[in-house]
Amino acid sequence: MSIRIRTLDSTQDGFQQQLHALLAFEAETDDAIESSVAAILRDVKARGDAAVLEYTNRFDRVGATGMAAFEVPQEELQAALDGLPQAQRGALQTAAERIRVFHERQKHELNGFTYTEPDGTVLGQRVTPLDRVGIYVPGGKATYPSSVLMNAIPAKVAGVKDIVMVVPTPDGVKNRIVLAAAAIAGVTRVITIGGAQAVGALAYGTETIPAVDKIVGPGNAYVAAAKRRVFGTVGIDMIAGPSEILVLCDGTTDPDWVAMDLFSQAEHDELAQAILLCPDADYIAQVEASIHKLLPTMTRRETIVTSFSDRGALIKVRDMAEACAIANDIAAEHLEISAENPRQWADRIRHAGAIFLGRFSSESLGDYCCGPNHVLPTSRTARFSSPLGVYDFQKRSSIIEVSEAGAQTLGKIAAEIAYGEGLQAHARSAELRLRGAGIERP
Amino acid sequence: MSIRIRTLDSTQDGFQQQLHALLAFEAETDDAIESSVAAILRDVKARGDAAVLEYTNRFDRVGATGMAAFEVPQEELQAALDGLPQAQRGALQTAAERIRVFHERQKHELNGFTYTEPDGTVLGQRVTPLDRVGIYVPGGKATYPSSVLMNAIPAKVAGVKDIVMVVPTPDGVKNRIVLAAAAIAGVTRVITIGGAQAVGALAYGTETIPAVDKIVGPGNAYVAAAKRRVFGTVGIDMIAGPSEILVLCDGTTDPDWVAMDLFSQAEHDELAQAILLCPDADYIAQVEASIHKLLPTMTRRETIVTSFSDRGALIKVRDMAEACAIANDIAAEHLEISAENPRQWADRIRHAGAIFLGRFSSESLGDYCCGPNHVLPTSRTARFSSPLGVYDFQKRSSIIEVSEAGAQTLGKIAAEIAYGEGLQAHARSAELRLRGAGIERP
Repeated sequence: MSIRIRTLDSTQDGFQQQLHALLAFEAETDDAIESSVAAILRDVKARGDAAVLEYTNRFDRVGATGMAAFEVPQEELQAALDGLPQAQRGALQTAAERIRVFHERQKHELNGFTYTEPDGTVLGQRVTPLDRVGIYVPGGKATYPSSVLMNAIPAKVAGVKDIVMVVPTPDGVKNRIVLAAAAIAGVTRVITIGGAQAVGALAYGTETIPAVDKIVGPGNAYVAAAKRRVFGTVGIDMIAGPSEILVLCDGTTDPDWVAMDLFSQAEHDELAQAILLCPDADYIAQVEASIHKLLPTMTRRETIVTSFSDRGALIKVRDMAEACAIANDIAAEHLEISAENPRQWADRIRHAGAIFLGRFSSESLGDYCCGPNHVLPTSRTARFSSPLGVYDFQKRSSIIEVSEAGAQTLGKIAAEIAYGEGLQAHARSAELRLRGAGIERP
Repeated sequence: MSIRIRTLDSTQDGFQQQLHALLAFEAETDDAIESSVAAILRDVKARGDAAVLEYTNRFDRVGATGMAAFEVPQEELQAALDGLPQAQRGALQTAAERIRVFHERQKHELNGFTYTEPDGTVLGQRVTPLDRVGIYVPGGKATYPSSVLMNAIPAKVAGVKDIVMVVPTPDGVKNRIVLAAAAIAGVTRVITIGGAQAVGALAYGTETIPAVDKIVGPGNAYVAAAKRRVFGTVGIDMIAGPSEILVLCDGTTDPDWVAMDLFSQAEHDELAQAILLCPDADYIAQVEASIHKLLPTMTRRETIVTSFSDRGALIKVRDMAEACAIANDIAAEHLEISAENPRQWADRIRHAGAIFLGRFSSESLGDYCCGPNHVLPTSRTARFSSPLGVYDFQKRSSIIEVSEAGAQTLGKIAAEIAYGEGLQAHARSAELRLRGAGIERP
């Protein structure tokens, strides 16, 4: 299995089409998955715990006799943490602390406001946390403690009282690093269930699992389909597409570093996307050489070969300014500006999930421990959406306290527009508050 | 057609079940609509303008020969504004100005941040506006200029450069108040198309209509289905359910006022919901009398009778504290606290789209001209979502600029966790930045 390195040139005819073909990704909806998920959700809504128990026993090959078997006591979480090797425990704890510090800044930015008008009318906006959230953590091979930290800590910082984590344990095998991360993040309750049945339990509630207000966290196609279906009953985070990195390099970074940064994305899964934009053809050739040199040392080289061959590219651009323009079109999840004076280029970037400035800012540092969230908008959705944050666990309410004097001026305006819209009761409701009310209108 | 007034008592057996049955609302998905919308979207994606032109001619019964026929020039918008009666024009302009002032506060709250750590590492969050948004405005009978103001002004305040409004004109009839509102709100471009074809054109772009980044605004079942389907390609706002008002009254407000406030919601449409919570049985009887007295004077009494009979209720509660607890369960779109010292009760409210304090704060004032947005979360979604705001037209990017010194400490932490997750390239990418790099790990 040899890697295919796609090289493009922005001056070539048809470059735009080639680029868009490369970026195109449409999540397929699988009718079999959709109908299976719909049936599971209906069943969980109707039968509650009994349904969750049956599906969990069947899909995860466990033989539980009751829901209590799926509860992981806080002591077990703490024991998992205590049992980690010291270096690993320390790394997770330091990462968690840095994530908390960053997200505290987000919280402090959003305080709500009120203001009082000269006539005494008070207007404002109040920010409050969600009551209860569910965090989905995948089981099986892709078990990411970092994902537990990144999803749970913002909720905690927001002030969510109840954080219910679900994590399937196929064949009953628990991942102790994931449990340790739950202990560090302050998760309220861990339940070892997964799949559409776990999403249904969180959305509708069962006898033993309380309904939550929002469900976040990644999952397989069944989980994604289930989240889409319960949206509206509860909030959900974005349904993530494949992960992406876009590296803008001016040719001054060690090509091994850039090659490894591309690999760090490409190793995620076979649909991951890693793209380099660079104005220096010689440098691109050096990165290509580094790719060939380093690939044999990679433990996940099969995944890297597949994803990089299918969806990766090294792109020669006219100059760094053009690279920035293309970056805005791509609106990447992760954007590395590996260049001298990176801020001059960062200032031109309008769309990206996270912007990594300078050659020491490898994406992997951000993935784990810089502090900002690693749950980021994929598939060009950075054009209109944001990293997961404290704000995803808060909501706003408008505050409107109209004084008697305010009702006199506002009432006339409201009535005028309401009559124009043919909504007479709206108009009358405003007019009744006018002094000497009862002005008759048609 | 006589009104049926449902009265409940929180102390009765089965009250919780009765209340939840009353609140239950599930938007039906209509398979015929779904498949029709899917076909239209596919067609617009494939054939662009030609498809939009055909569908618009067919569904809106117009005979356009090209897309140019659907453009409304800025001069026509301005002429519509100039042609309004002075009182109406003044009311819209004052409302718009108040909406702008409120939303400027939202903008000033969200500035992003950066902070520098002792080792020189810079972390932060940048807030940027969307490039281009589409605003859907319904045509036909429900033509609401206030909706144009409420959707377009937050986008404008956010700094969105391009605001494309679509509004169908069945039989070619344009609504001049809606066009006037577009002029006031500073909409960039108005196109007289609607339905799923308009949503498709905005999401995918056509030869004459640029693809937008987000689509907001209300519409019929076809529009809602289309928005749900293009979500991911573009952002969308919430899909709104029926409008709701919940009035908490301590029995000190003129019962006519409360009855009219309930009517102002009930007149919206036959699924609208209007509920009163009050601890005073005598007062509830007075409101009931006011309902019977005022109903004959209502021009939209048929709608009021249907919606109030089907989904309305007057509920006797133990006390105002219980009313607040029930209000948190209902998580109403509009919550009026029509009481003495309303703030004591407002402090207990955790979930509501907008909170109207005091008897002069009728919902209708907020609908039109107080300043806060009238696009609010319905169907209990105020538990996890917010009024439409400037923040819906902005997104955040994380900023990560790791210093060389920072890369030394962070790199070791990241590598430790990455190896724990089995992601070796992530670990190596961090380790390459360590001084004297090349530490070999398995």
